[in-house]
Amino acid sequence: MQVKGKQYRTIWLSSNNEVVKIIDQRKLPFSFEIEELKNLQEMCIAIEDMHLRGAGLIGASAGFGMYLAALESVEIDELEKAAMKLKATRPTAVNLAYAVNLMLNELKSINQDLRLEKALELAQQIADNDAEQCRQIGKNGVSLIEEISRNKKGECVNILTHCNAGWLAFVDYGSAISPIYEAQAKGIDVHVYVDETRPRNQGARLTAWELSEQGIPHTVIADNVGGHLMQHGMVDMVIVGADRVAANGDAANKIGTYLKALAAKDNNVPFYVAFPSTTRDMSTKDGVKQIEIEERSGRELTHIEGWYNNEIVEVQLTPDNSPAVNYGFDVTPARLISGWITEEGILLI
Amino acid sequence: MQVKGKQYRTIWLSSNNEVVKIIDQRKLPFSFEIEELKNLQEMCIAIEDMHLRGAGLIGASAGFGMYLAALESVEIDELEKAAMKLKATRPTAVNLAYAVNLMLNELKSINQDLRLEKALELAQQIADNDAEQCRQIGKNGVSLIEEISRNKKGECVNILTHCNAGWLAFVDYGSAISPIYEAQAKGIDVHVYVDETRPRNQGARLTAWELSEQGIPHTVIADNVGGHLMQHGMVDMVIVGADRVAANGDAANKIGTYLKALAAKDNNVPFYVAFPSTTRDMSTKDGVKQIEIEERSGRELTHIEGWYNNEIVEVQLTPDNSPAVNYGFDVTPARLISGWITEEGILLI
Repeated sequence: MQVKGKQYRTIWLSSNNEVVKIIDQRKLPFSFEIEELKNLQEMCIAIEDMHLRGAGLIGASAGFGMYLAALESVEIDELEKAAMKLKATRPTAVNLAYAVNLMLNELKSINQDLRLEKALELAQQIADNDAEQCRQIGKNGVSLIEEISRNKKGECVNILTHCNAGWLAFVDYGSAISPIYEAQAKGIDVHVYVDETRPRNQGARLTAWELSEQGIPHTVIADNVGGHLMQHGMVDMVIVGADRVAANGDAANKIGTYLKALAAKDNNVPFYVAFPSTTRDMSTKDGVKQIEIEERSGRELTHIEGWYNNEIVEVQLTPDNSPAVNYGFDVTPARLISGWITEEGILLI
Repeated sequence: MQVKGKQYRTIWLSSNNEVVKIIDQRKLPFSFEIEELKNLQEMCIAIEDMHLRGAGLIGASAGFGMYLAALESVEIDELEKAAMKLKATRPTAVNLAYAVNLMLNELKSINQDLRLEKALELAQQIADNDAEQCRQIGKNGVSLIEEISRNKKGECVNILTHCNAGWLAFVDYGSAISPIYEAQAKGIDVHVYVDETRPRNQGARLTAWELSEQGIPHTVIADNVGGHLMQHGMVDMVIVGADRVAANGDAANKIGTYLKALAAKDNNVPFYVAFPSTTRDMSTKDGVKQIEIEERSGRELTHIEGWYNNEIVEVQLTPDNSPAVNYGFDVTPARLISGWITEEGILLI
């Protein structure tokens, strides 16, 4: 998608195929910086220290990480060590382990002198597949926006989203935001309410930034505001992403998603979850009961990063003696979800 | 209530009755500073620039403001000018106008030489009444906590609250937090989940601080977390304050309250609203439809204050080109409210 009028993906290879380039997302939205990753070690740091994040992008980074490893050595032993190293950077990231295992198995099965070329091809394929899946989510999901636009006789369609499920979380396009980009391409009048998404503020920092760069009208709101907006007819639909979707349709997503789903239900606003079909986890029968919720550091809540005197600083928000608890995700029960959007199609209820 | 082990109100007179003292709430929780207000002008600044806030406390401040005016002059003309000045500081604060009018009318009706003494007596009375009302809210509301404690066989009662409806918003005790202070006094085991309450963070800054100083176990959470906690049985009851309660029971309170009420309903968690009976507005028949919601500056959302290098600084959170909208309150429909707690008693449904 667009940054300062130029087309970007979140991860790509230099023209000589020797360096992987990424957008350093830690600096956004205050500073747009491209980082060059020259070897496996640098990629591991980038993943672990969250220079990049988002399920799809982490998967693609793992693929390029294995390619960087292959540039150093194509010995099986070395590739296996590289795979272990990569998997240790974000142990709970399903896409990461998936991409690493796929690469390792393929490379092990072929002759040593073919491995480097194959690693390049596979890494590029993983990234391309991610982008294509997301583009297809957009092409499928846009029909829901088009329908509302028709019902409103072309008046602006107001869409609320939570967290960042845009192109910054994938290689391109995004999941929840992809139908919005597609709507823009089709000339549909849209406006996005962006939940700031405490405590890490991915909405205020990343979603707002990518919509801004793409020229999509949007407004940042506190996470507390969505209920009021829906109560007063100011939201036509909600679209969010998902980290895991259980067999019964329950969807784990950034903490606070469930509250927006409740407000949508209470006000007859359709609530959609958009995700690549690989996010479905059929082994989890009941999402609300079975999906374990990651508890993250309380410091993400007691402190916050912001822009001050031309640098990013971290300021304290709470009293010294007040503990904080920080659940990363919640699970929205299927009964509150109007439809599931994937690259395969839309499941409506 | 307690600060550093010493008993305080939010506003009081110096021993010679010549100076009004307040806690400068802008500095909390980072620095506890007492400000001395020596004349009407200083009181007007304190109210307007929010050195103090909260319905009950603003009312009491208006009373003491009229007393400070009387110290300067007890001429009717001068008192009327003072009343106008005070009312202009926070034009929408109902308690402020009420206290100012009450004082002015009483002072106008008596001889000039009695006015100063009467102003002192009335101002003190307004403050004492506020504290007494709040104490009574606590005495009434504690029965709800006691019942849950009994049902849990004395196990800790987990209470979620939003924003600051503690003693810092009144002269003493508070509204939503008063029953919790009373529970502590009765030896009931309680723990409070404190919503940080974006965008002004009154929960993270003020409620967390006053609970901490009073020694009440509590945990600060993002506003996004309450739904997840209730879904998993981690909250036994919700108590919030109110800015206005309509004739039909709908309650206007800090933005985000409605989302917590929805989560409470969805998980059979009782949801209570606590307020002095003066907060009831019988002229508003339908709260959701009729209560107008104040739109505040977007800067409260795009920037945030925090503690950095031993001072309070304001950092930027959002991209330069992303607008923000900031609704101050929302209205929780009566159908989501389990009970209304006032100094007169509890109305349950």
